[in-house]
Amino acid sequence: MNHTDIRDMLETAVVASRLAGQRAMEEIRYVKSSIKDGREMVTQADGICQKIIIDRIKESYPDHGFLGEEGGSQGIFRQPPRGADDIWWVIDPIDGTNNYAHGLLCFAVSVAAFWKGKPIVAVIFDPATESMYTATEDTGAQRNDSEIRVNDEPLSRFSSFGIDSHFRSEMAGAIQRMIKNTRFRNLGATALHLAYVAKGSMIGTITTDAKLWDIAAGVFLIETAGGIVTDLQGKRIFPLDVAAYTGQTIVMISANRKNHPDLLKLFSSGS
Amino acid sequence: MNHTDIRDMLETAVVASRLAGQRAMEEIRYVKSSIKDGREMVTQADGICQKIIIDRIKESYPDHGFLGEEGGSQGIFRQPPRGADDIWWVIDPIDGTNNYAHGLLCFAVSVAAFWKGKPIVAVIFDPATESMYTATEDTGAQRNDSEIRVNDEPLSRFSSFGIDSHFRSEMAGAIQRMIKNTRFRNLGATALHLAYVAKGSMIGTITTDAKLWDIAAGVFLIETAGGIVTDLQGKRIFPLDVAAYTGQTIVMISANRKNHPDLLKLFSSGS
Repeated sequence: MNHTDIRDMLETAVVASRLAGQRAMEEIRYVKSSIKDGREMVTQADGICQKIIIDRIKESYPDHGFLGEEGGSQGIFRQPPRGADDIWWVIDPIDGTNNYAHGLLCFAVSVAAFWKGKPIVAVIFDPATESMYTATEDTGAQRNDSEIRVNDEPLSRFSSFGIDSHFRSEMAGAIQRMIKNTRFRNLGATALHLAYVAKGSMIGTITTDAKLWDIAAGVFLIETAGGIVTDLQGKRIFPLDVAAYTGQTIVMISANRKNHPDLLKLFSSGS
Repeated sequence: MNHTDIRDMLETAVVASRLAGQRAMEEIRYVKSSIKDGREMVTQADGICQKIIIDRIKESYPDHGFLGEEGGSQGIFRQPPRGADDIWWVIDPIDGTNNYAHGLLCFAVSVAAFWKGKPIVAVIFDPATESMYTATEDTGAQRNDSEIRVNDEPLSRFSSFGIDSHFRSEMAGAIQRMIKNTRFRNLGATALHLAYVAKGSMIGTITTDAKLWDIAAGVFLIETAGGIVTDLQGKRIFPLDVAAYTGQTIVMISANRKNHPDLLKLFSSGS
């Protein structure tokens, strides 16, 4: 991919995410939530916002592929690329759906473009605070056009560490330690946690039960902002074959460089 | 107090909180944090914002009393009322200072006016999302001029429950149960948790280590929105002698009516 192409894709992702986020803010007053798979709150707004994003991207890139949270009967929206480019857009229209369904203003639009199994463009838009996070190799990691970097704080009682709801029981010990030893946070939106790691507001996160669309943009944003993201074996999350992804759970640790080794040790030992 | 007086006071509190919150949003890019009491991140912005609030209220009510988080050597700002009215304004200029100091956009301005030991006006302003929460007996509980109510959701894996960082070890068992059985949240700002209970976004909170200024507005907001707030013995938080308050820790449960009895049982037994 050449540099101009990637910049154009970033611009398209920013516009699409902003349109979707603005619509989400309009819809939030009228949300009707329902239970999906017995665990996710789903809203009409989710589907509307995903369509806004895909329609906008297709205007510019009709032959690209799309993978999204909101699908038909199988729960995943998948439309493989038709052109020679082999680019996939991976989309979570509203990350933090449970918050959204309850009017809790922590949620985000997450959009990433993959080429050869790696993200080349990432956008996370937090419409409630008008925060547009972006990353490409050329432009670096930014929030509202200002550079962001992971912080270099050590793990302490003053540092914030993001954890998820309903973490697995085998991680309970490690998570209790983080709850005890940091100002743990659970904003209820994985993509927002990752954006705040990239911005240097949190020292890291443990993500225990994510799908690709929850974390695709955030992982690339953090890496571009100087942080590290791996699975519990210390392996990078990407490359990943988007065409073959069918909803497998992704477990990962994100952190600044100072803390990643200790966090990896803590969570891989499970104690 | 007559109704017109209370409405005027509410208007003053709204203006003062908005001015302070807007200033906080301006200052957040330049924040220099330092450690106070070995546990609180303190920012210059805290002091600036408290002065904005007090100066604005004094324009209208020069003889009222003031109690604020940001003080001199003793850590509390206290200026007793001089008039016959015996009204105290209890102020937290930036609730969620640690978030604020790290650029994490969950924080709030909290202002409450007390008369005869009880709040009669409450304002919580979340400047990052432009959410102005207000309560008086006459106007009810509102967010941005629309009525808000606590929800009537039961405790479940889909309901959000707010918990604090660094909770006391004797509460660990009860808090673990809530972490396991709900979508627990820790936004890192007590006043915001309370506003979200009032708005019906959370079913309740446990507040383990608060000061009067953190919770004064929030307690009145929740009660006005139809919820219940008590200490661990089931006793209401107010009336409270503001003149005699010297920084004692307040431990409390807030909840909708459906869940308060069970939460009280859980947290008072400590298991």
